[in-house]
Amino acid sequence: MRCFRPRRAADEVDKLVKRPLVSGDVREGGESSTSQLSRIMRPDDANIMGNVHGGTILKMIEEAGCIIGTRHCNTQNGDRCLAALVRVEKTEFLSPVFIGEVAHVTAEITYTSKHSLEVQVQVMAENILTGAMKLSNKAALWYVPVSLKNVDKIMEVPPIKYASAEQAEEGKKRYEAQKLERLETKTRIKDVVSPPSNPEDPTKEQHTVGFSQSSLIHLVGPSDCTLHDCVHGGVTMKLMDEVAGIVAARHCNTNIVTASVDVINFHRTIKKGCVVTVTGHLTFVSNKSMEIEVIVDASPLMETEKGKYHAVSAYFIFISLDKYNRTLPVPPLKIEGEEQQRSFEEGKARYLQNKAKRLAEKERQQ
Amino acid sequence: MRCFRPRRAADEVDKLVKRPLVSGDVREGGESSTSQLSRIMRPDDANIMGNVHGGTILKMIEEAGCIIGTRHCNTQNGDRCLAALVRVEKTEFLSPVFIGEVAHVTAEITYTSKHSLEVQVQVMAENILTGAMKLSNKAALWYVPVSLKNVDKIMEVPPIKYASAEQAEEGKKRYEAQKLERLETKTRIKDVVSPPSNPEDPTKEQHTVGFSQSSLIHLVGPSDCTLHDCVHGGVTMKLMDEVAGIVAARHCNTNIVTASVDVINFHRTIKKGCVVTVTGHLTFVSNKSMEIEVIVDASPLMETEKGKYHAVSAYFIFISLDKYNRTLPVPPLKIEGEEQQRSFEEGKARYLQNKAKRLAEKERQQ
Amino acid sequence: MRCFRPRRAADEVDKLVKRPLVSGDVREGGESSTSQLSRIMRPDDANIMGNVHGGTILKMIEEAGCIIGTRHCNTQNGDRCLAALVRVEKTEFLSPVFIGEVAHVTAEITYTSKHSLEVQVQVMAENILTGAMKLSNKAALWYVPVSLKNVDKIMEVPPIKYASAEQAEEGKKRYEAQKLERLETKTRIKDVVSPPSNPEDPTKEQHTVGFSQSSLIHLVGPSDCTLHDCVHGGVTMKLMDEVAGIVAARHCNTNIVTASVDVINFHRTIKKGCVVTVTGHLTFVSNKSMEIEVIVDASPLMETEKGKYHAVSAYFIFISLDKYNRTLPVPPLKIEGEEQQRSFEEGKARYLQNKAKRLAEKERQQ
Repeated sequence: MRCFRPRRAADEVDKLVKRPLVSGDVREGGESSTSQLSRIMRPDDANIMGNVHGGTILKMIEEAGCIIGTRHCNTQNGDRCLAALVRVEKTEFLSPVFIGEVAHVTAEITYTSKHSLEVQVQVMAENILTGAMKLSNKAALWYVPVSLKNVDKIMEVPPIKYASAEQAEEGKKRYEAQKLERLETKTRIKDVVSPPSNPEDPTKEQHTVGFSQSSLIHLVGPSDCTLHDCVHGGVTMKLMDEVAGIVAARHCNTNIVTASVDVINFHRTIKKGCVVTVTGHLTFVSNKSMEIEVIVDASPLMETEKGKYHAVSAYFIFISLDKYNRTLPVPPLKIEGEEQQRSFEEGKARYLQNKAKRLAEKERQQ
Repeated sequence: MRCFRPRRAADEVDKLVKRPLVSGDVREGGESSTSQLSRIMRPDDANIMGNVHGGTILKMIEEAGCIIGTRHCNTQNGDRCLAALVRVEKTEFLSPVFIGEVAHVTAEITYTSKHSLEVQVQVMAENILTGAMKLSNKAALWYVPVSLKNVDKIMEVPPIKYASAEQAEEGKKRYEAQKLERLETKTRIKDVVSPPSNPEDPTKEQHTVGFSQSSLIHLVGPSDCTLHDCVHGGVTMKLMDEVAGIVAARHCNTNIVTASVDVINFHRTIKKGCVVTVTGHLTFVSNKSMEIEVIVDASPLMETEKGKYHAVSAYFIFISLDKYNRTLPVPPLKIEGEEQQRSFEEGKARYLQNKAKRLAEKERQQ
Repeated sequence: MRCFRPRRAADEVDKLVKRPLVSGDVREGGESSTSQLSRIMRPDDANIMGNVHGGTILKMIEEAGCIIGTRHCNTQNGDRCLAALVRVEKTEFLSPVFIGEVAHVTAEITYTSKHSLEVQVQVMAENILTGAMKLSNKAALWYVPVSLKNVDKIMEVPPIKYASAEQAEEGKKRYEAQKLERLETKTRIKDVVSPPSNPEDPTKEQHTVGFSQSSLIHLVGPSDCTLHDCVHGGVTMKLMDEVAGIVAARHCNTNIVTASVDVINFHRTIKKGCVVTVTGHLTFVSNKSMEIEVIVDASPLMETEKGKYHAVSAYFIFISLDKYNRTLPVPPLKIEGEEQQRSFEEGKARYLQNKAKRLAEKERQQ
């Protein structure tokens, strides 16, 4: 007789997200639509230990957000437009995903302001051999609709209907909070200084910041781009995760995985034909985690170095795993100089704050 | 106000498939489960006119079928198994899909016999800018569950419940019809003869030049090109190395690697939309190395063969390695005819010259 | 003790290029810049033994050269231009690179003539788990700047400053030597004749079966395979569609798309490490469609040709489209010999049968 694994998995999804999501369809209540992407994880999506890269997951999350955002913003008259990613809220990787598993990414529009919209995404990983289903990731992304005719023209967002006044109120709070933060970082990003030249400095001692610091360069190609000829936010995040992974592996010499990503603001878009330089360095190390600051610079290939600008920056948290996927201790970071000390203190503050938040949430749930 | 495009699209799906499909979930009736894959079509998925390749769609169809089939066959006790594709029924492409559209692939198990199952798949293409949704494809695939422990062991398929006796009956008819046909073609396939000008000429003796000679065809796509719409030199070199590697592997039947590449001159550029033919054959074999001449021809796809021209040619040197990455001896080359003899002598001269150069350099460094 | 490989490796770099390299930055002296690409080697970059393909390395080398060359040539007024590769000097692969290692490609402009520039590139492979660093490759490439407005216009190259008169002198010698050689090969290349068993037999008349017949070779990689290490049916179908598309395009010289695929039976699975040969030829042409028979042969790379077997075969139907996606008439097929005539009649029978089926279905639906 037929067995009920698929149903069980679906039940689990229901439990986890509280409200059932129906793919590619309008929700019963009639308010907000959802979008779902699914794909088998292949060897190229993972590291040599079989752990799927955080960057692969981030890229899928952004693709689902872009589809649902673009679809929604074109449900009105006026210029055709694309949803452009402007911000990703702090994202946690709750459980590792492996080669051969199917990742299901579900996105839903949860708030709209006049010119932006919030998309909440969740990623479930399904082992199709055992039927096991686990929540891998939850993320919130902000998009603005950009006219296809004129990249500098931001369109209006059609409002969604909320299930309750409370839901609308909570969305508004999240909107105001992120707006304020984005303004702050916009002023701060001007001060960001690229790390001093050569990432692979041979004179550096092991476990110092300079020792593991890494950078990679990527020439933007057609497959990296939207119909606008701008780089997909997901492509940028995948590159950032790759560099952060190299930094973490250099520091620990073990199997490392992405544990979480701090808020990412996309202040400036990156166009086709640009050279993208992604640089990462350790800012803080706790007993079991590493914080890596990743900075993305872009410069048009046809221009001199003066055309170079800061496009994005973010903090990635990595952990080290043994062969049974249990966390390993991380070697302490050797600090050199005042600036590194200041960065370390700031990283420690973020670490303690996040720890406190997680504890508070746990208590709230009990 | 909110518009109803997504709903309209979903309505269209309903109309087309009669029964509404609910993704990743058990159907209302409770009997059969479905699976859905969705993905934005990228430049790499299409030809230079923007039409998505039929092959891209076929690959997504099979992935969806494999997921749902594997998931279903593992809902029982016994060995873990994978659903292996054994047959695809006639498939029609009803409307073209374009870059930037989202392809939604939905799969459903529609019949199970003791050792096989039928999956019906449909592909909808959604233009997320206009909300337009069109049926692109419908397909039926047959899978058998193969044990992961033992590839030759076919597992049993858990039965599904049918909505009606009629549905079961129709499925059985399809099953019997395809079974008969598969048996027929199985006997017939023994008679299939490879067409005459196949590069792997079966009449060639092993270790001759003709035996290992190989060629490949590549249709230049957007990702192969520079901003000029010319093929990147690096892309051409990668194809050349690929052909040379196949030639070397056919000659030795071992793990082979590139040892060096002789000078490559790029006399003429290759434009977007060209068909590139890369041909390689052995010219010289020493005790431990093989020299392979690789020739690249290009011809614009939209023109007659008169447009064909030699674009690049070069010599690649390969060596053969055992599993500890130590060099292995290479089987001698059987020369046939004067032209091959002359090529061999020229190759030998290059080999000796390079050997002398390397020795001189070594001495200079000491 | 920790190993000082990275340090040693850097020493090697110093020895090799004399002057220390500074990544993505202008050198202190302000004259000549360097560029660095880094990337983790993935399963798709390597063969099934884990050895990274020489072609993957060559492609990265060229990308680094193109970036630094283009950037340099645009540091002056005049048309924007791209550096186009014209020549690669002899290149040696000094040590194998493996999956999971990080390849660092460093490029530096070492000579400029009025219309060309020399880029020297080196590739270091770093094992980020052990810290081991080894020199994998050294290459020298020649580029010319081509105007983006007019592909036939070669721009002038801004001169670089040399560290010493000696350095300039040596560069000039290399420049003169390669110029002479390129001229020589340019005259010689006209004599190069495609090898005899090339599938695109130039003696074939247009619109015959032999004229458009095509085949491609694919080496099965990890990303093509299931957890069983067998090729996904979808991967095979994608290759089949690719060959059929080349056949159709050669016959019509227009934009062609897949209209339908006849039944495909998968009698034998294809294993990891096989070489797959996919051959296609026209069997029947109606007024507006082409039927192409595609045959897939597989043979284990490490065995003799005796291991070769027919894996799959199928008929693909293609149609020809104009730029508004309307069907175009297809040139008639010139039949040669009895066997082709028999195939043509069989194809015609399938065509008429399908047409009758479609009509019957249409009537049934009304």
